[in-house]
Amino acid sequence: MAFAQGGRGYDRAITVFSPDGKLFQVQYAQEAVKRGYTALGAKTKSGVILAAERRTTSELVEDGSVEKIFKIDRHIGAAASGLIADARVLIDRARVEAQVNRLRYDELISVESLAKAIGDIKQMYTQHGGVRPFGTRFLIGGVGERGPHLFETDPSGVVAAYKAHAIGGGAEEATEVLEKDYREDMNTEELVNLALKALNKVIDGDLEAKKVEMAKAEAEKQEFIKLSPEEISEAIENWKPESSEE
Amino acid sequence: MAFAQGGRGYDRAITVFSPDGKLFQVQYAQEAVKRGYTALGAKTKSGVILAAERRTTSELVEDGSVEKIFKIDRHIGAAASGLIADARVLIDRARVEAQVNRLRYDELISVESLAKAIGDIKQMYTQHGGVRPFGTRFLIGGVGERGPHLFETDPSGVVAAYKAHAIGGGAEEATEVLEKDYREDMNTEELVNLALKALNKVIDGDLEAKKVEMAKAEAEKQEFIKLSPEEISEAIENWKPESSEE
Amino acid sequence: MAFAQGGRGYDRAITVFSPDGKLFQVQYAQEAVKRGYTALGAKTKSGVILAAERRTTSELVEDGSVEKIFKIDRHIGAAASGLIADARVLIDRARVEAQVNRLRYDELISVESLAKAIGDIKQMYTQHGGVRPFGTRFLIGGVGERGPHLFETDPSGVVAAYKAHAIGGGAEEATEVLEKDYREDMNTEELVNLALKALNKVIDGDLEAKKVEMAKAEAEKQEFIKLSPEEISEAIENWKPESSEE
Amino acid sequence: MAFAQGGRGYDRAITVFSPDGKLFQVQYAQEAVKRGYTALGAKTKSGVILAAERRTTSELVEDGSVEKIFKIDRHIGAAASGLIADARVLIDRARVEAQVNRLRYDELISVESLAKAIGDIKQMYTQHGGVRPFGTRFLIGGVGERGPHLFETDPSGVVAAYKAHAIGGGAEEATEVLEKDYREDMNTEELVNLALKALNKVIDGDLEAKKVEMAKAEAEKQEFIKLSPEEISEAIENWKPESSEE
Amino acid sequence: MAFAQGGRGYDRAITVFSPDGKLFQVQYAQEAVKRGYTALGAKTKSGVILAAERRTTSELVEDGSVEKIFKIDRHIGAAASGLIADARVLIDRARVEAQVNRLRYDELISVESLAKAIGDIKQMYTQHGGVRPFGTRFLIGGVGERGPHLFETDPSGVVAAYKAHAIGGGAEEATEVLEKDYREDMNTEELVNLALKALNKVIDGDLEAKKVEMAKAEAEKQEFIKLSPEEISEAIENWKPESSEE
Amino acid sequence: MAFAQGGRGYDRAITVFSPDGKLFQVQYAQEAVKRGYTALGAKTKSGVILAAERRTTSELVEDGSVEKIFKIDRHIGAAASGLIADARVLIDRARVEAQVNRLRYDELISVESLAKAIGDIKQMYTQHGGVRPFGTRFLIGGVGERGPHLFETDPSGVVAAYKAHAIGGGAEEATEVLEKDYREDMNTEELVNLALKALNKVIDGDLEAKKVEMAKAEAEKQEFIKLSPEEISEAIENWKPESSEE
Amino acid sequence: MAFAQGGRGYDRAITVFSPDGKLFQVQYAQEAVKRGYTALGAKTKSGVILAAERRTTSELVEDGSVEKIFKIDRHIGAAASGLIADARVLIDRARVEAQVNRLRYDELISVESLAKAIGDIKQMYTQHGGVRPFGTRFLIGGVGERGPHLFETDPSGVVAAYKAHAIGGGAEEATEVLEKDYREDMNTEELVNLALKALNKVIDGDLEAKKVEMAKAEAEKQEFIKLSPEEISEAIENWKPESSEE
Repeated sequence: MAFAQGGRGYDRAITVFSPDGKLFQVQYAQEAVKRGYTALGAKTKSGVILAAERRTTSELVEDGSVEKIFKIDRHIGAAASGLIADARVLIDRARVEAQVNRLRYDELISVESLAKAIGDIKQMYTQHGGVRPFGTRFLIGGVGERGPHLFETDPSGVVAAYKAHAIGGGAEEATEVLEKDYREDMNTEELVNLALKALNKVIDGDLEAKKVEMAKAEAEKQEFIKLSPEEISEAIENWKPESSEE
Repeated sequence: MAFAQGGRGYDRAITVFSPDGKLFQVQYAQEAVKRGYTALGAKTKSGVILAAERRTTSELVEDGSVEKIFKIDRHIGAAASGLIADARVLIDRARVEAQVNRLRYDELISVESLAKAIGDIKQMYTQHGGVRPFGTRFLIGGVGERGPHLFETDPSGVVAAYKAHAIGGGAEEATEVLEKDYREDMNTEELVNLALKALNKVIDGDLEAKKVEMAKAEAEKQEFIKLSPEEISEAIENWKPESSEE
Repeated sequence: MAFAQGGRGYDRAITVFSPDGKLFQVQYAQEAVKRGYTALGAKTKSGVILAAERRTTSELVEDGSVEKIFKIDRHIGAAASGLIADARVLIDRARVEAQVNRLRYDELISVESLAKAIGDIKQMYTQHGGVRPFGTRFLIGGVGERGPHLFETDPSGVVAAYKAHAIGGGAEEATEVLEKDYREDMNTEELVNLALKALNKVIDGDLEAKKVEMAKAEAEKQEFIKLSPEEISEAIENWKPESSEE
Repeated sequence: MAFAQGGRGYDRAITVFSPDGKLFQVQYAQEAVKRGYTALGAKTKSGVILAAERRTTSELVEDGSVEKIFKIDRHIGAAASGLIADARVLIDRARVEAQVNRLRYDELISVESLAKAIGDIKQMYTQHGGVRPFGTRFLIGGVGERGPHLFETDPSGVVAAYKAHAIGGGAEEATEVLEKDYREDMNTEELVNLALKALNKVIDGDLEAKKVEMAKAEAEKQEFIKLSPEEISEAIENWKPESSEE
Repeated sequence: MAFAQGGRGYDRAITVFSPDGKLFQVQYAQEAVKRGYTALGAKTKSGVILAAERRTTSELVEDGSVEKIFKIDRHIGAAASGLIADARVLIDRARVEAQVNRLRYDELISVESLAKAIGDIKQMYTQHGGVRPFGTRFLIGGVGERGPHLFETDPSGVVAAYKAHAIGGGAEEATEVLEKDYREDMNTEELVNLALKALNKVIDGDLEAKKVEMAKAEAEKQEFIKLSPEEISEAIENWKPESSEE
Repeated sequence: MAFAQGGRGYDRAITVFSPDGKLFQVQYAQEAVKRGYTALGAKTKSGVILAAERRTTSELVEDGSVEKIFKIDRHIGAAASGLIADARVLIDRARVEAQVNRLRYDELISVESLAKAIGDIKQMYTQHGGVRPFGTRFLIGGVGERGPHLFETDPSGVVAAYKAHAIGGGAEEATEVLEKDYREDMNTEELVNLALKALNKVIDGDLEAKKVEMAKAEAEKQEFIKLSPEEISEAIENWKPESSEE
Repeated sequence: MAFAQGGRGYDRAITVFSPDGKLFQVQYAQEAVKRGYTALGAKTKSGVILAAERRTTSELVEDGSVEKIFKIDRHIGAAASGLIADARVLIDRARVEAQVNRLRYDELISVESLAKAIGDIKQMYTQHGGVRPFGTRFLIGGVGERGPHLFETDPSGVVAAYKAHAIGGGAEEATEVLEKDYREDMNTEELVNLALKALNKVIDGDLEAKKVEMAKAEAEKQEFIKLSPEEISEAIENWKPESSEE
């Protein structure tokens, strides 16, 4: 098969360039993300919201097990898609980075600094031998001195700022909703509804609290808070009427 | 053969991504677990129970030799499936981790912290060169301040919390029993019976004490205790009537 | 296919020579740059200007996200083309280099010294094992004691000084404009117009502020300043009449 | 040939997993043990006995040369099968381990602790790059505070406790004897006879002192003692009448 | 093709010997030099002269950008051919070497010592793993206590002294001129003319100052001086009458 | 060819196991020994004798050049067969080992300790990456507190004690003589004669002093002494009558 | 072709054994020596002489450039054949070795010690990973307390003492002369004539001073002296009459 043949030489060893200037191992790591569950985020001046699809293969899995949204510091968190164990390891490094910033400068790390720190770690794993790239993509959301921010980092280490963005297996469908419905004047509640609507396109069956993970950081409070299952249930209830209007 | 061909390029060297974003060496390590004996666990508010299949190929093997369930700290233990030597090495690290926690914070390590520490070690062995992943899966059970917990770690480093879960060669059959019979209001004795019933599906021939390894940690006592052969015998005796009711 | 065959032996391992004395990995890294967006620069005695194409694939990307032009020190900056994450990492090293120079010699680093420092790092990544070359090309512009300077560094580590130069995917078309219209007596405003005209050849559709990143350093002020979207808009407005004259 | 083909990819490099979750290098190391001479051990409450087949290819080899049974500490020793040089190196490490235990805790190392220490070293050589697994299997016998013990370690690092066990080329035939004749109430003398009977199945020609290496540790004396050729001769003499009874 | 086949095995890995005792990677590095621009040098008792071809692909390249002749210390310099970035890195090391000599012995480094130091670095890169050879050849010229000297170092690390020598793409044609016209009694001016005549054979179109880089070190002054474009222009003017005589 | 095919996969990389549990690189190193000249040794209570075949390819080689028998300490020496340079390096290590023993314990190293030290070094070179096994076999002879000893170490690190033994290309023929004629009551002179007779089977043409290297250590004197050519001549003279008796 | 096929597997990686116990990389390094120019040496009680063929490809090469005979210490020197840069690096190490000996023992290093030190370095490069063997052979000559000595070291690290010996491309022809004409009672002058006669067999065209490098160390003076071109010319003149006698 032509593709398998072409790729054969370049992916065995450490991350190297292919003749057309691509890094195969990085592209394969991107595939690992595409196999992951969907996560998305959105931000306005009012706040930033992160949401992630949760699939429980069994009734016996604990609620809240295998989280996809992580709190990093008081004002900042991240949603991950791709290899879960890779994500957890990077989140730990991000937490250290945030604490170091507190100790060193006696202030909270900015969302951008944190996103770049994670991007730098990821880049290093695409250039040096004896390691593979991280198979995970992050949406990093938080509130800093200049208000709410939403950043994405991909396996190659690219860092970009978004108003709203989706990653993972259902990124395409979720993005369609975000592009159509996002408005810069949305308040936090509306952002939550936007997130639910986008997730609803991706999730199998009815939207239920147990299929959703969610967090928000409001501009005023500067605090990153994971929503409880009850709060998510309530949000879904609140959203449904709106939803049914369509 | 198509599969052998496709996999050929990606598994020779250090753990790298295949074009579709998989880590072959990690998947092969998962196979090593599937070849292992069955282990399972279950928890409710009353406590947590771990059980493992024991196959003695010879009468000359000492009872209790080659244990699959390990005590890690006073309140916590683990059942392993897969490569036994890999498991023993990781258990040693877990014990150190638990002791360090006692020294550093003057308190017992939480079940979740310990599970994540093991997951982090496993993840590292899937990303760095010159090593192979651990060919073992753990069920980690214990009682902390917030009650009993049951976690699983797999060779990729994923950590998940379960109410009841089975790993190893007979995971599928054992899980069927767990899914059908598990109730959140079971007391410790009922958990033991549940475990025996699930193991009974997997074990060749009659269920006997010498074919079973078992441990429990009751919510009240906060102590992880391995059951003696006598206690297991007694439990089997107690369970059988119940069993025969079906 | 002949090419694929020929290259097969030399690109798998660490950067080595091919029989005709080429370094394949370096050439493949050059391809990565050709796949990047266009950036350009120009300098006269009056100052130095850097400009880069910005393509926003979605309305939801934040303005100013994923910058291609970076400030390095008060008097110096760089435009990058190629792998963005590689560029960010090198820019960080350049900033450290500039600060070290301030501390050590109590003076600003010269544009040439900085360009050579970056070139040296890049060269090292083409000669030593266990790493791949950087997939990025820089235009480094700034004002030193001997006036404005513009340097380019490529993935092999070559450093060259230019009056005006373009890199990235549209380098060829942009260079045509630069070669035809550049004059050594241009003032900063004329340089801005020259840059806009060259970018206009490369950018899809109408030239708009959101498609352009720009920075300038005037000889007198010795300060590297990124233009705000408003300033770029204004520059485009100012340029258009001139442009329409043609 | 199918097998050779299948194995080709996985055994060249460092110890890695094959698609079905096996570690080829470890399995090949197990083959090295099967090519080795037979060794066996047995223990009851009275004591523990180790015995090994000795084949002298030439009259010119010194008696007692190339020993297969090694004293490790006052109360503990081991019989090895497989690569002799690998065994000697591990025995040296075991001796250090035993001495360190004396210094650190002012008491003799337990047989189990020592067996696990050796197992841990062996496991490490199956997981890290740049080394091959040890091609040797040990029977470790000794007397501790809780009486006599017999452990086995294999090239993968698995540690198991046995009442009686045989390793090496003739393991199968020797085990048949052990399984048939072993009784938990045997005294040391009877254990010696059991060992001789098992070895007799394996050894070419008549059982003679020069074809046998032997050691014992009696529960009372807590001392591991290698039998002299004279003692072995005498033991063979004593055993023969019993033997002829059959 | 036979050659490509034959070479296939030996050039992938680290620099190793081929069956006929050649070091392929070193030979390929020599090819890199042959692809470089021409450089040449000549010396008599009066002084030493270095000259190099300069090709400006664009009017927009700064004069004096990408230099091929480097000053190393007050009395010594070098002309390079081959990979420019490799050359720059080695020149930096040579400058350090020269300064260390001043500090350690309080005297200028001899031309021979410096040439051997560079040769030693180059040799090391042909014998140790994880690096590739330097793809550059140097002509090192300077004036020491025993008068002017001219040395060459090649990618294998060979160091040789010459009266006159040419390297790079046009080495053959340039050498013809040197061999025919060089005389040991030439003064510095005549050496300049010799260099111009040799370069003229290699350079496309008319000989112009912008196509030539040049440096000289006169025996009396013991100072290595790069000629300014004006001085080169003047030299070309002076040479042309002489040239037209032929 | 079947063998070449089978071996192809296992000998390229570091010393690894073949599917049947062999270490190919070690076996190939054994071949290097078989290509070497013959060496032999013999010991009784009276003393120990070492002898080696010397082949002078040219009259111009110095007598005593390229020695095969080395003095290690006052009471101990070794004869080597295989790669001469490997042997010399190991002998140097053995000398250091012997001196360290003197310093540390204020007594001469025992022959057995020294043989095991060399065996340990050899073993390490068969298990760790980045090195090849030693291509040499030693006969180590000396006199300690418990009288004369003769040990052999092979490339795998195996150490064995012998009464008499031969290594190298003519080992088989020489061993035939040793097995037939060796008696445990031989005095040193008879041992010399035995060695000469064995070497005579191996050496081309007549036995002459220049074809023989020899050393002895008598039990009484505890001193390892290399015989001079004159002493060897004399020994040959003395032996010949005896020889002719046969 | 069978040989090329067979050798293919063994020469790519680090120096390893082939199935018949050869070290391919070492043998290929020997080929590098055979491609080198001829060097030879001879010694008697009167002194030791070294001579080497010098081929000047161009009139423009400096006399005495690229030397093949190196002074190492006051009383000792070496002639090299093979890769010149490898030789220079080893000679530097030899000089350090000689100086260290002076400092440590306050006496001149013996010729044998120096030869063995070089042999040890060479051996190390044949056994450890990440390096290739040295592609050079040395004749080391000098005068010590026990008179003149001549040693050879080859790429494998073998060290041998000779009365007279030739290495490099013309070793065979030169050796023929040495074997035929060498006498142990030659004085230094006769040794010079012998060397010239042997070189004459190897050198193209007439024997001239510029084609010969030569050095001698007389027993009385204990000083290693390189002959000047004038002295070599004179020696050739003196030799020719004798030569014509034949």
